[in-house]
Amino acid sequence: MSLIIQKYGGTSVGSVARIHAVAEQIAKLADEGHRVAVVVSAMGDTTDRLVELAHEVCPEPDPREMDALLATGEMVSTALLAMALRRLGRPARSYNAMQLPIATTAQAGRARIVRVEAESLQNDLRTGIVPIVTGFQGCAANGDLTTIGRGGSDTTAVALAVALVADECQILSDVAGVYTTDPRMVPEAKRLPRISYEEMLELAGQGSRVLHLRCVEFAARYGMKLRVLSSFEAGPGTLICQEDRKVEAPVVSGIAFNRDEASITVGGLPHKPGMAYAMLKPISEAAIDVDMIVVNTPDTDHADFSFTVHRNDYSKAIELTRVAAHAFPGAAVTGNDRVAKLAVVGSGMRSQPGVATTLFETLAKEAINVRLVSTSEIKISVLVAEKDLERAVRALHQAYGLERKPSP
Amino acid sequence: MSLIIQKYGGTSVGSVARIHAVAEQIAKLADEGHRVAVVVSAMGDTTDRLVELAHEVCPEPDPREMDALLATGEMVSTALLAMALRRLGRPARSYNAMQLPIATTAQAGRARIVRVEAESLQNDLRTGIVPIVTGFQGCAANGDLTTIGRGGSDTTAVALAVALVADECQILSDVAGVYTTDPRMVPEAKRLPRISYEEMLELAGQGSRVLHLRCVEFAARYGMKLRVLSSFEAGPGTLICQEDRKVEAPVVSGIAFNRDEASITVGGLPHKPGMAYAMLKPISEAAIDVDMIVVNTPDTDHADFSFTVHRNDYSKAIELTRVAAHAFPGAAVTGNDRVAKLAVVGSGMRSQPGVATTLFETLAKEAINVRLVSTSEIKISVLVAEKDLERAVRALHQAYGLERKPSP
Repeated sequence: MSLIIQKYGGTSVGSVARIHAVAEQIAKLADEGHRVAVVVSAMGDTTDRLVELAHEVCPEPDPREMDALLATGEMVSTALLAMALRRLGRPARSYNAMQLPIATTAQAGRARIVRVEAESLQNDLRTGIVPIVTGFQGCAANGDLTTIGRGGSDTTAVALAVALVADECQILSDVAGVYTTDPRMVPEAKRLPRISYEEMLELAGQGSRVLHLRCVEFAARYGMKLRVLSSFEAGPGTLICQEDRKVEAPVVSGIAFNRDEASITVGGLPHKPGMAYAMLKPISEAAIDVDMIVVNTPDTDHADFSFTVHRNDYSKAIELTRVAAHAFPGAAVTGNDRVAKLAVVGSGMRSQPGVATTLFETLAKEAINVRLVSTSEIKISVLVAEKDLERAVRALHQAYGLERKPSP
Repeated sequence: MSLIIQKYGGTSVGSVARIHAVAEQIAKLADEGHRVAVVVSAMGDTTDRLVELAHEVCPEPDPREMDALLATGEMVSTALLAMALRRLGRPARSYNAMQLPIATTAQAGRARIVRVEAESLQNDLRTGIVPIVTGFQGCAANGDLTTIGRGGSDTTAVALAVALVADECQILSDVAGVYTTDPRMVPEAKRLPRISYEEMLELAGQGSRVLHLRCVEFAARYGMKLRVLSSFEAGPGTLICQEDRKVEAPVVSGIAFNRDEASITVGGLPHKPGMAYAMLKPISEAAIDVDMIVVNTPDTDHADFSFTVHRNDYSKAIELTRVAAHAFPGAAVTGNDRVAKLAVVGSGMRSQPGVATTLFETLAKEAINVRLVSTSEIKISVLVAEKDLERAVRALHQAYGLERKPSP
């Protein structure tokens, strides 16, 4: 008998019929002898609708009030799911973040979980009650409701799993697992039965929508086993856990990509210390996330500095960069918001050379121009024109033989 | 500078435009130099929609989960109203029942307010922040969210007003005050500038929809001044306060009525102690509210026992009564669910005889059959056929000269 934390996303509880289906799935797991605690997102597009409503009231809503508003979405879905379980004769009890509490820091909209008070949950689990907990929300020390950022429900689930010392944390959504790349783009994409935290981190950080970076980081830090599953169909999903050193890691596990990129390049900067800092400081002060950073020195006196940001932040970022570059005569700022990023990820890269060679060879054959490249131990990221993205992913998926991956 | 608690009902905050209008109304009150705390209901028909949703999930939803679900309605409207006030440059802060807290008993769906922790509100008022508090909800000692019954937001407002020692508690809705009778039925109906708690209690208890009985009782107990106002148009509304003994009370203040009545009569009961108890016990055990109770003894051996219930409870109530009456041979149970009640209310009745005579004379002239009569010190209630109700109210409104009431 194991203790399993299940997290159901918004699509999984998007209608009354879906809520009943989820209740039956939970009941089945309990029938198999497991103890289950559940984390739920807001139903369907509830959060988006609440955000819209807030913006109708006020163009720049107060962040504290925004959090108080958004937190209601998960309160609705937890109460309804508890009702649905009780209808099946299963004792269940809903909890919001103030009731446990789930203590967080005070930054509205992007609070961090500090502590989960699990006593009520433990009592419930001991007495056969299924606790249903609101995802995405927390409670600051001053009593304010907080939210922990979009997709935060995954993180809530891992935090609960860690607090309850669960055997596994299952993330249920409308995808059946982690794939070698997005099956909507490459039909030959295969589900990965198992993947390491590191690989998942790289995939999540590179635009895979399956899991949020933060939730994977959290799970990796505590060694909590994660399993990505579909709530719509049966299947083993993908297990995310420590790398199994006894098994040789595949060279490349998957290809992630992200269309919402924009790149900014500052050419002709003087080549001296502090240049990168001078360029990035105004960007980070404006709370704009920077993704890739590439520096090149064409000669001993000059440096070219490039970085990528989310497309939504492009106009603000290039404006700030122009101001910053103004201090350096001869520096020229250019940008492109029609770029996309792809990343080839695999633990096996560590010991297998030639991954980069295959990448450049494949893209060359396809006549796809590579704009920026950055590498980590188990990942190579490449920036290409947005129009070339799909062709690049398909070609690389085939070049690395990902369509032949075993999928037990 | 006075301290005013304002409560806005669901219609008053039923849309984004209405929320802005309410924010401006609050800002205006603050500009006049008053300190203001606000209680808000859920937007429009939100509560009804949540109830429907719950019933879609489960025919008999768990009461604890129902309360957790319904409490979200007021959380949404408080957050939005706080945003709207901040947009006007007014510091404002939303509070739900767990945040103050508003401590209640544990009965889900009909909890009673035990204590309002007003410290946060006092801090806000001191520093010029408008606190916006969720009506209708509370928090039980075990941390469960509770609701305090339909229309409970009025009661929340009075509880806050008492806790903060406010000068006045204003109930804003879509009606401009308390009228001599429903203006939708009798266009000549006049707004009453002032009315005593006692009269308001009788009106509220007799079907006037303006204020809930419980909220008036609460205000009367603490001598908290209540004012009924429209949130849609300016006007002084109706002040509900202690009777002014220096002014002669009007004979009749108003006529309330209620269509949703059903009557049950048990004839031929033995005339001995405990009969009324024997009949009412199963009804109260089934949590059915009984309104009028009339006992008559046609001869020394027999008693006729009649009572009225809400029309929704009729079939259950008559069934229970039949079972109870079964113990008494010769007893016969009859019922009618097409009846309506009207009540003539006025503090002046105490000293002015003839109110009842006018009532019976008027109804006789109109050939309206009187089915049940019950009287209190300042009220006469009469049960008539539903089809006769409107004619009865119009005739009595004229007979008591209510259309000539001064309305300053």
